[in-house]
Amino acid sequence: MSVHSKLYEGKAKIIYSTEDSEVLLADFKDDATAFNAQKRGSISNKGNINCIISSQLFQQLEALGIKTHYIDSPATNQMRVKAVKIIPMEVVVRNIAAGSLCKTTGLALGTVLKKPLVEFYYKNDQLGDPLLTSDRILLLELATPEQVDTITHLALQINQFLGDFFKKCNITLVDFKLEFGLDSHTQILLADEISPDTCRLWDKLADANDPDRRVLDKDRFRLDLGNVENAYQEVLHRVLKAVENKN
Amino acid sequence: MSVHSKLYEGKAKIIYSTEDSEVLLADFKDDATAFNAQKRGSISNKGNINCIISSQLFQQLEALGIKTHYIDSPATNQMRVKAVKIIPMEVVVRNIAAGSLCKTTGLALGTVLKKPLVEFYYKNDQLGDPLLTSDRILLLELATPEQVDTITHLALQINQFLGDFFKKCNITLVDFKLEFGLDSHTQILLADEISPDTCRLWDKLADANDPDRRVLDKDRFRLDLGNVENAYQEVLHRVLKAVENKN
Repeated sequence: MSVHSKLYEGKAKIIYSTEDSEVLLADFKDDATAFNAQKRGSISNKGNINCIISSQLFQQLEALGIKTHYIDSPATNQMRVKAVKIIPMEVVVRNIAAGSLCKTTGLALGTVLKKPLVEFYYKNDQLGDPLLTSDRILLLELATPEQVDTITHLALQINQFLGDFFKKCNITLVDFKLEFGLDSHTQILLADEISPDTCRLWDKLADANDPDRRVLDKDRFRLDLGNVENAYQEVLHRVLKAVENKN
Repeated sequence: MSVHSKLYEGKAKIIYSTEDSEVLLADFKDDATAFNAQKRGSISNKGNINCIISSQLFQQLEALGIKTHYIDSPATNQMRVKAVKIIPMEVVVRNIAAGSLCKTTGLALGTVLKKPLVEFYYKNDQLGDPLLTSDRILLLELATPEQVDTITHLALQINQFLGDFFKKCNITLVDFKLEFGLDSHTQILLADEISPDTCRLWDKLADANDPDRRVLDKDRFRLDLGNVENAYQEVLHRVLKAVENKN
C-alpha cells in the first residue's frame, strides 16, 4: 500500500492519507501525554500494544453490528481506517467514579455508579477539554440532538460489550473515552482507539489492600505508579487470550 | 425584632435566626470576593445597595406570582426572609456570552445567544463551583428531575421579567445567578439576592468603543476596572427610577 502524506499528528497517533481518499492509515506512537500534554513521556511498545488491542476490540464490536472505522491492520502498530470527520467531542462512559469525576463532584475514587454515566467533553486542547451539557453541545453546534441520542445509545451498547469482555479478562472496566466520526454518508462510526490509553482498567486479581497495584492503564503513567509497560503488556496478553477462548 | 444567633456567615451576607423559626434575617455585607474567594476586597455601601435592589426586584417578582423568600426590609442593609433549605446549585441564566462560558467554550465575549441558556453549577467552594450536567444533578441527588424542570421554568420567567425591567433602566442583562430553596412544605422559593454582585449588567448608554465603560456589575471589581461603587450606585439609581415610573 502506498502511503501519501501525513495529514495530522496527534498526541498518540499519526494519520496518513492513502491512494484511496476514503481510507486513512493510523500509525500508533509510543509517545504518552497526560493532563492536556503538560506531562510528556514515552511507553515502550505502546504503539504496538494499543493498535493490537484496538484492532481486536473493533472487530468484536463490528461482529455485534456496531459500525467502526476499522478496516484492517497491515502492521502491528498500524491500522487502516475509513476516513471520517471526527465529531469534536470526547464521549466518556463511567461505571465507577475516578479521575475528573471525583475532582468535580467530590465522589470518592471507586464509588460504583448506580447506572453508567455517559458524558461529553469538548475536544479542544486549548480550552482543556471542558465538560459539555446538552445545551452547550447544541449552542456550539457540535452535534444534533439526534446524533447525541445515537451516540449515547452506542456508547451504552459498547460499555455493555466491553464490560463483559474485560470481566472475562479479570479486569474491571472503570471508565473509557470514545470518539465518533461521520463518514461521507454522514453515518456515525466509532473511531479513534480503545486501549489502556483510553480506558481505566483495574485488575480484579490484584491485592485489594493496595489500590495502586490494580491499575492497568494510563493512570500508571499519569500518577507515576511505575511498571507502565508491564501493565499494558498484561492487558494485551489477557485480551488476546479472551479473544482466543471466544473463537 | 429580637435577633437570636448568627446561623451562617457567607461571602456577602450574614444570616441570623429570629424569634420565629420560619423567619431569618439576612445582613448584607460590603465585603466583596471573586474567583472563589481568591480575590478579596470591599465595596463601600454594597450591603445597602444590594439589599435595596434585591428587595425591589423580589417584590416585583412576587407581584408576577413568582414565589421568593422575601418578607420585608427592616433596614437598608437587612432583609427578613423565609427560612429555606438552599438547594446547593447556582442557577445561571445567560443571554450574552461572558465570563466562564467564554473560557470554556471559546465563544467571544458579547456573543448574543440565540436563546437564553439555563445552566446549573454545584454550589461547592471546595470544588470551585463546577458545571453540572442533568445526569450529575441526579447522580449527586442535588434535585429531582421535576425540581430541575420547575427551576428551569422559573429561571426563564425571571429572565424575561429582569430583561424587560433592566431594558427600562437602559441596561442590558447579560447573565445572572439565582439560588433556590425549599421551604418547610418543600415548595421551591427564589432565595439569595439579585444585584450587581449576581448579575452582569451592561450600560446601554456607555460609549460602545470602550467595552469596559459599559460594565455596571461585579466585573468592575473582578477585573480591576475601577469606579466600582459608582457603578453599583448607578444601578441602584436607575432601578429605583424604573420602580417609581412603574408605580
